[in-house]
Amino acid sequence: MAGPQLSERARVAPPSPIRKLVPLADEARRRGVHVHFLNIGQPDIETPASVLDAVRRADLKVLAYSPSQGTAEYRAALTEYYARHGIRLSSDEILVTTAGSEAILFALACVTNPGDEVLIPEPLYANYLGFAAMLETRVVPLTCSVENGYRLPPMGEIERKIGPKTRAILYCNPGNPTGTICTHDEITGLVELSRRHNLFLIADEVYREFVYEGDGPTPILTLSGLDDRAIMVDSISKRVSACGARIGCLATRNRELMAAALKFAQARLSPPTFGQILGEAAARLPDTYFAEMVAEYRRRRDAVHTALQAMPGVVAGRPHGAFYEMARFPVDDAEKFVIWMLTEFQADGETTFLAPGSGFYATPGLGTKEARIAFVLNVGALDRAMAVLARGLQSYPGRDQ
Amino acid sequence: MAGPQLSERARVAPPSPIRKLVPLADEARRRGVHVHFLNIGQPDIETPASVLDAVRRADLKVLAYSPSQGTAEYRAALTEYYARHGIRLSSDEILVTTAGSEAILFALACVTNPGDEVLIPEPLYANYLGFAAMLETRVVPLTCSVENGYRLPPMGEIERKIGPKTRAILYCNPGNPTGTICTHDEITGLVELSRRHNLFLIADEVYREFVYEGDGPTPILTLSGLDDRAIMVDSISKRVSACGARIGCLATRNRELMAAALKFAQARLSPPTFGQILGEAAARLPDTYFAEMVAEYRRRRDAVHTALQAMPGVVAGRPHGAFYEMARFPVDDAEKFVIWMLTEFQADGETTFLAPGSGFYATPGLGTKEARIAFVLNVGALDRAMAVLARGLQSYPGRDQ
Repeated sequence: MAGPQLSERARVAPPSPIRKLVPLADEARRRGVHVHFLNIGQPDIETPASVLDAVRRADLKVLAYSPSQGTAEYRAALTEYYARHGIRLSSDEILVTTAGSEAILFALACVTNPGDEVLIPEPLYANYLGFAAMLETRVVPLTCSVENGYRLPPMGEIERKIGPKTRAILYCNPGNPTGTICTHDEITGLVELSRRHNLFLIADEVYREFVYEGDGPTPILTLSGLDDRAIMVDSISKRVSACGARIGCLATRNRELMAAALKFAQARLSPPTFGQILGEAAARLPDTYFAEMVAEYRRRRDAVHTALQAMPGVVAGRPHGAFYEMARFPVDDAEKFVIWMLTEFQADGETTFLAPGSGFYATPGLGTKEARIAFVLNVGALDRAMAVLARGLQSYPGRDQ
Repeated sequence: MAGPQLSERARVAPPSPIRKLVPLADEARRRGVHVHFLNIGQPDIETPASVLDAVRRADLKVLAYSPSQGTAEYRAALTEYYARHGIRLSSDEILVTTAGSEAILFALACVTNPGDEVLIPEPLYANYLGFAAMLETRVVPLTCSVENGYRLPPMGEIERKIGPKTRAILYCNPGNPTGTICTHDEITGLVELSRRHNLFLIADEVYREFVYEGDGPTPILTLSGLDDRAIMVDSISKRVSACGARIGCLATRNRELMAAALKFAQARLSPPTFGQILGEAAARLPDTYFAEMVAEYRRRRDAVHTALQAMPGVVAGRPHGAFYEMARFPVDDAEKFVIWMLTEFQADGETTFLAPGSGFYATPGLGTKEARIAFVLNVGALDRAMAVLARGLQSYPGRDQ
């Protein structure tokens, strides 16, 4: 007899488009090739010393559980951080989570039954698909295209996707993987749709500070009349280059939803204690820290975007925020191209590793000529990586004619 | 119009029986009452200095993501730790998780569709219910009773609970909240059932080292012929008194299941980096550390058990492992009694906080006269706490006649 069968959700959960090709990159490195890792949003920026020092100096004898909702100290520090961004929250409206990941999981679990639908603009943060698979939530994509900078489709088009099973609209603003920032009008458009069809609005705002030009993102919790339906998902991972801390939060003024999320939070007992100590220090970083960091990322964005524009046949978005640029490449298949770059190509011992685009789409068959570039290296390294990418594109046998 | 409605799983998820009365305890403390916290498995034992120092001394500039399956270094250290316990595992058979909690979530997600059933002996680790609710997995309890030390029901009785929707048997060994250790014959009985009905076996072995008398637990992964169906869930939280590290693992030799669990792990990117640094040091602690720790817990177990036996009308298990004792009390309702102890009672300015029993049962109406005592304080404090408990029982107006 064959052994017991896995669940359907285990079967349909997608592998990470960002991580699945990592073994090929490791293999290239073993062959002595220098790989420029632009596939994953792991910044090279140093975690601020004051933030790491908070952990090093923590006077702990017992590394104990924290409260399930997070420590009182950290939640108080968060209320001050959010107030500086115009978001007035009480500690009770914040649930500290194990990174933004868990906040997404809890938000989806609180608002969807298996088979229920959530609208999400695509290309999307690929991990939404993994959490949706785990919960048997159906993702209904709102397809955006590189030609118009991955802006949201017209509201009428979005409204036609809303059906009896639709429970929420989830969006990332500024967006991963596109770097697009929703306009205030787009957000109020989504708000209007959520009111008309009684939906939850889940806003993933982890890239709040990463704004390079134009208006910054409108925080969902600064809009009035949304207390029943607005949920913010957040994370310190990118903000202070502390991806390994695994600290985020879910914030909402819907008390019933917060009580439900707390039940899920109690089941997993508590978020990491060290991470919360670090987060408390991170919440107190001065604005100058962010100004310098954003200036650095703007230089990187400019380096990547300028290089992409100079590559024949490449159609690139121009990201206003986050630290990704998504582009369409003149190739038969972007995943094949990425694999070829890792396995067959090198330019003077170097290659560049992008994240293939199809994994960022929920619609099968889309994104096959796109790839995401995370500008998480310094400008010098990015210049090298983009030069290597340009040479790879020239040599790739599957180049579109 | 009322706002959007929460999901059914949000509605049915149970609040933590361990944590839900904490506000009453906080209130008591504000009134100046000294509360002996025996409600939660938070040990007072110091985290070993060498283990905390590993974090303090970590030479990090960027607190980066780890691989989704955990760092190579930590997984290698785990293979050596498990080998010392007779469990031969390769690194590829270990997925590092955010505490045992996430390992349970991943295991259940990999083996159940919504509506599928998992058999679990009760009283049970209450958080299984929360994860099952999130995934819409049905828990089918196998009811044990204090009279026979919370041993498993006869195998024939368990077999009658297996139906077409049954996908797995999940058990905790040594058991939380009972401290009962399954005999080798009981484990082989479950194995036989799992073979006959093609079920997964999920063994939660986080209390492996906590054995006070009799035979130790049989690790599921030491039994042969179970590679298709055996899943071990583990955590360092209790083992090294590092509950706040949030590091555990899922181990299985079923490659298909490991690949599926890794997809869920990729969705959440990585387990905490500091916790893995700590875990690596923890995996290298000498056996003498555990011998001393277990001797200390044995003294505590003896103090609690002796005191309970001396209380008229109390029927107590005699835990052979873990660090909990579950008992039946001569009261109208154990939760009312616990609340009364926190809100109305004090003995010379002290009271004792137990976890009411009903939350550890999936069967409605069971456990209403039971409570769990975590022996997580030193013997002196436990002696005081038990004396206060005895006086509370004498004075309680709802005492059974």
